[in-house]
Parts: sequence; C-alpha cells; structure tokens
Amino acid sequence: MTSLSISPAEYQTRTDQMLEYLRVEKLTGVVLFDHYYILYYTGFAFIPTERPIAFVMNTRGERGLFVPRLEVEHARSNALINRVDFYLEYPLDTHPMRVFEKMLIEMGIGGQFGADTDGYPWILGYRGPSLSELTGGTPHQVVGYIEDQMMIKSPAELNLICESIKWANLAHMLLQRYTRVGVTETYASMRAGMEATLTMLDAIGPLYSAQSAFSDGPAAGYRGQIGRNAAIPHALANNITFQPGDVLVSGASTPMWGYNSELERTMVVGPATGDKKRMFEHMLSLQNTAFSAIRPGVSCCDVDRAVRGYYETHDLMPFWKHHTGHAIGLRYHEGPFLDIGDQTLIQPGMIFTVEPGLYSLELGGFRHSDTVAVTGDGIEILTYYPRDLPSLTIPM
Amino acid sequence: MTSLSISPAEYQTRTDQMLEYLRVEKLTGVVLFDHYYILYYTGFAFIPTERPIAFVMNTRGERGLFVPRLEVEHARSNALINRVDFYLEYPLDTHPMRVFEKMLIEMGIGGQFGADTDGYPWILGYRGPSLSELTGGTPHQVVGYIEDQMMIKSPAELNLICESIKWANLAHMLLQRYTRVGVTETYASMRAGMEATLTMLDAIGPLYSAQSAFSDGPAAGYRGQIGRNAAIPHALANNITFQPGDVLVSGASTPMWGYNSELERTMVVGPATGDKKRMFEHMLSLQNTAFSAIRPGVSCCDVDRAVRGYYETHDLMPFWKHHTGHAIGLRYHEGPFLDIGDQTLIQPGMIFTVEPGLYSLELGGFRHSDTVAVTGDGIEILTYYPRDLPSLTIPM
Repeated sequence: MTSLSISPAEYQTRTDQMLEYLRVEKLTGVVLFDHYYILYYTGFAFIPTERPIAFVMNTRGERGLFVPRLEVEHARSNALINRVDFYLEYPLDTHPMRVFEKMLIEMGIGGQFGADTDGYPWILGYRGPSLSELTGGTPHQVVGYIEDQMMIKSPAELNLICESIKWANLAHMLLQRYTRVGVTETYASMRAGMEATLTMLDAIGPLYSAQSAFSDGPAAGYRGQIGRNAAIPHALANNITFQPGDVLVSGASTPMWGYNSELERTMVVGPATGDKKRMFEHMLSLQNTAFSAIRPGVSCCDVDRAVRGYYETHDLMPFWKHHTGHAIGLRYHEGPFLDIGDQTLIQPGMIFTVEPGLYSLELGGFRHSDTVAVTGDGIEILTYYPRDLPSLTIPM
Repeated sequence: MTSLSISPAEYQTRTDQMLEYLRVEKLTGVVLFDHYYILYYTGFAFIPTERPIAFVMNTRGERGLFVPRLEVEHARSNALINRVDFYLEYPLDTHPMRVFEKMLIEMGIGGQFGADTDGYPWILGYRGPSLSELTGGTPHQVVGYIEDQMMIKSPAELNLICESIKWANLAHMLLQRYTRVGVTETYASMRAGMEATLTMLDAIGPLYSAQSAFSDGPAAGYRGQIGRNAAIPHALANNITFQPGDVLVSGASTPMWGYNSELERTMVVGPATGDKKRMFEHMLSLQNTAFSAIRPGVSCCDVDRAVRGYYETHDLMPFWKHHTGHAIGLRYHEGPFLDIGDQTLIQPGMIFTVEPGLYSLELGGFRHSDTVAVTGDGIEILTYYPRDLPSLTIPM
C-alpha cells in the first residue's frame, strides 16, 4: 500500500454518477458550495472563508472550480478539473458572484439546475446574491442525492478509515499512559497528540495528507469529560486535574485524506466497584446489543430500538441521553443515524459509530465509541482498542 | 484584572440593542442559528452539529435557547436566558423543528420576524424545514444589523484581544526558537503550541476559557508556508523540513473567551540579501503605508487604495495576491475588509489585521500580519512582536 488517498479514477466515478443523476433529472448542471461535497467529488481541500469557492459541472461533463486568485494554482493542480475560473479578491469593486454568473452562462448552467444551497453561505463577513437572484430560477436541491451517494463507502474509503484508526489507537494508548492522578487533561492530551503525530509522520509522512481544516494528525483527549463533568457529553475543553475515582470519557481520531474514524473509551482512575462497575458493564452490554443488531437489510431505527429495549428492560432510561450512533466518513458525524427516527435501510459499505451511553450526575458518563463497517452479512468492528474494565483502569 | 470574559451586563446590553432594532423594524422577534451570533449575544458556546440549536428573542425581551437534551444543563446555566426548550435527539420520530415551531408560537414570534438564515443549515447529515416552511412567512434578514453591531468592539472585547496577543506572542517566540535547519515544521509548531498552552494554563488557567470550537490555547505554525510553498497563502499544513535560505510565513493565535487576534511574521533561514531583502523591506513599507492610512472617518477602501498605490509605484503588482486586511473578533476573519470594494467608514473601536503581502514563485511569500485597534485619532498596534529583518532571521 503505497498510497493513502482516493485515486483520480475514483473521483471520476463519483462525478460520473452525479452526471448520470443530472441527466435523469433533466438538470443543466450542478453547483456545489459545501467544502465536504467539493472534497468528495474532486479531492480539492480548502478551508471555507469569506472568499467563495464552488464546484460546477454541466451535463457535458465539464468540471469547473470557481476560486479566489489565492487558490488558482491549487485548483489548477487538480487532475479532474477542466476549467478554473477566478476572481481577484472579495469584496473588491466587482462582486465575485458577477464573475461566477458569467461562468455559469458559459458552461450552460441555468433554467433547471441542481445546487446544495441557494448561494454561498454568509460566513466570516461574506454577503452576496443567492443563486436564485443570480439566475432567476430556483435551484433543485441535490443534497439528498449526494448524501445517499456518500453513505456507501468504497474499499478505498474503508482503507483510509482503517488507517485513521491505527494512529488514533496510538494517540489513545499514549493518552491512557499519560493519564495519572495529579496530571491535567491538557498535559496528557497534548503530549499524546504531539508524540503520536510526530511518530506517524516518521512512519508514513510521505504518504500522509490530512486534507482536513480542523486537524493535522492524531489527537486524543477528554474535552472536559472527567468525573461529574463527563455527564455533559459535548462539553468544551477544560483543564481538569485527574483525581482518584474519576470516570473519564476519552476520544481519539486522525484525519486521513479527509476521512475520520471514532474511538472513545470510558476509563476509571483506580478500581471501579459497585454502581460504577455496574454502569460500565451495562454500557458494554448496550454496545454489544447494537453490534448484534446491525446488519444489511435492517433499518437504522431497528438498531436503536433494540438498544432502547435494553435500556428499558434494565431501568436505564434515566441515564439515556442520545441515540446509538451515526455514520462517519469525510465528516465526523453524518447520516444515516442509528436513531429510532431514521428509516434508512442498512447496506454493505456503510460505516457507523456505535456509542450508546449512560450518564449519571453523581458518577459521570459511561460511553465507548467504536467504528464499524457493514459487511455482506453483519459488521466488522474496525477499532480494536481494549474495551474491558481491567484494561481501562488507570493505576493510582 | 480577575476576569477574562464578557460580563453578563454586556450580553444584556447587546441583546437590548437588538431588541431596540426589532422594535424599530416592527418585527415580532428574532431567530439566530449561527453559533458565532449566538455566542455574541448570549455567551453560549457550542460546536455546531446535526443537532440544531437556536437563540430566540421576542419583543417583550424574553430570551430563549432551543437545544438538544444533551445541552440542557449547559443552556440553563446561562444567566441571560429566561427559557430553555429542548428536543430529545435528532432525528427521532418527531422532527426537532416541530418542537421549535411550538416554541416560536408560544413566544409570539411569527408574521414579520428576523432571522440570520432561513432555517438551520443542512450540516453533518441534518435535514429539516426552513423557517419559511415552518411559519408561512419569509424571515427578515438581520445579518446586516448584526454585523454592524459586531464591528465596533467594546473595551472588554479589546481587552480579550490584547490578552490573546500575549499568549500568541509566547507561542510565536517558541516557534521561532524551535525553527532550525533540519527540523520539521510540525515538530516546531507542536512543541511551541504545547509549551505555550501549558505555560498559559499555569499562569492564568482559572481565568481562562477558550470558548472556541477550533482551538483550546495558544498555537503557532506555518501551514506549509515554507520556501517556495509560501507563495500559496492558505496552503493546508504539510510536514516540511526547514532548509537554509527558506523564507517562512508564520502565524500565531490564541482564542480568548472566543476572541481571536492575528500575529504573522516573515522569517528567513540564514542571512537575507539581494531580492529577498528587497522584498522584505517593501513588505514592511506596504504595512507601514496601511498603518498610516487607517484612522476614523477614512473608508476601508481608501486604506487599500493607498496600499495599492505603493504596489503600483514600485512595480509590485505582479507580487500582489490579496487585500490589505480584515476585521477580527469572535471570527478570525470578519467584515469590514480593508479592500478597495468596501466603502465602510472606519470608526473608533474597530479592530483590523494589517497584512499586505508579496508572493514570488521563486522566493516565497512575504507577509507580516499585525492586529490594530482604531482609536479616536488613528490606531494602536496591539501586536508587539519584532518586525525587523535581523530579529526575524533564523541562525544557521
């Protein structure tokens, strides 16, 4: 394996599928602004700012990028792109969307065409006309089609997610090693992240590209989910010192050519007994219930319903806070959701996180998250970090 | 100074001003989805996901947060909020927007009301109805008002930006110290970030809250802007090894209660002579030209025009790639822009980055970025890292 990337041929296939969809729907073309969608179809990675960027394709299969001057070299180096149109700067005296309007006309995109949003979103001070205002038509919403396409991962995507997991595993191993009574979570997290990143670059540096706006390598930490704070699953980071008896919820990840994996573990500082041990074991059983329920042909909602059944049978609903899991790929959360409201049929090639949790105001949070791939007849659990209580007990 | 935050009284003032605007515009209330706007008006920090969150205020001044169950404790702890409505999970069998619809009706928000976007944006797998679909009306766009309000920083905001600069300065000092021939940018950047963060937490930990979804402390690095790569100003990070003769463009920042500052420096590995020295000196003069031009009553475009004048007089337009700078605050880029297309009048309390650059395919990029505050009669340059070539030369 001398490449950790998506091949040009695969981007070609992805856009060809979109092209077929445009023809079936009798659309003149498609306009995409979302940076994840642009990354998915072209491999062009960028950080969204007030300078609008768009991917455009017409039904002749002509593929264009619309970029600020700053990004021209980067856009032109993309093998899939036939045409790069650019504006000098935002805002300037001619609004970039006037340049874009010309590009749309030249590419024959108008009347009935597809788009992900009606214009570039107003972020970081950007303001500008919608596509409706620009073209006089209402763009046809193509997000449903794109999301359905992105749900099924190719072997290359699965491979990138598996590679992501290896380095997240390293970061988590180091995080656990540096987590000790009296140490702060920031120290443990930063030291683990730095060592894992430098080690990964020594091992696979020439093959590695994060393709992520948010992270450049393996990271692991607690985001404040320590002791009683752990009952708040998405707390923003704090600088908490580990104490004897703490229940910890960790998370580790690594962007790999834009793809994400998820590894989370419940760890305890010192031996866990009584209610703490009981909660830990219920959490494991909840996760096992989900693992058994996920297979092709089952609906996402049925998995969550099976897990809810376990909560209810064991009087655990007071400790419930969220659904069983979600799909993962270029985005760290994506649809479908393992949720009683999601009717999507599970298919081979889908990749999910499995992470039912228990949250007690007194004890803290109990949640493992593993990343699993749906196979022909069930699942493969891709993450392989130990899940059992003895392995996850921090010595005092 | 025992607090590094915005006071509840200041959030109250901000929402009172919005309330006055709603009354003048005869709107029944306002709905905000953008996490920066919600942070600005309430201090409620969160990471946007597929679980929608909104801030709602009616003309009686009732202030509500709409959140998933996961965020209820966090929302309730906010002093400014009178009302927290929640849904259990997304997607579930009842769409969250049905719960939100009920909240809007109970708060009397309908007919003519304001909003930042027409519904929660479709991110990370979220799909749902727009506000137009939900209410039968078209929300009045309030982004213009909000952006105008956010442009003028209060003394407390200025104070947070100044505090941010101190720790960014430390991170940059360490970055420069660890930048040596044969070392990789990742090593220098991660070591500087880790040491600066742990030091900052030892110094001001109990006072510190990042309130940022992207960063938890001081960071400094190059994002691949090394040698010839530096000519691409927003390159995503690479793992480049420093070489003799490299021209480097750095960046350092620290989120402080959500507020950002910007410090960027051009550094050279080994003595710079000839064209390299000439470009460095022109870059300094460009920046000095901007510093002299910024004062209350001048338009943003006039500053950029003065800087353009310098480029033209010295035949530097082939090395131009972007405007002079942008405002900064809760967002690392925001309007107004120091750009020939931005007519906004400069006023006391505005805070800008000043960063005209020169980009040569052969030599690399030359850009300093300093953060400046507009005073009653000119500017105060808030960043104080050395700007001169001898101070920015890395020994070989």
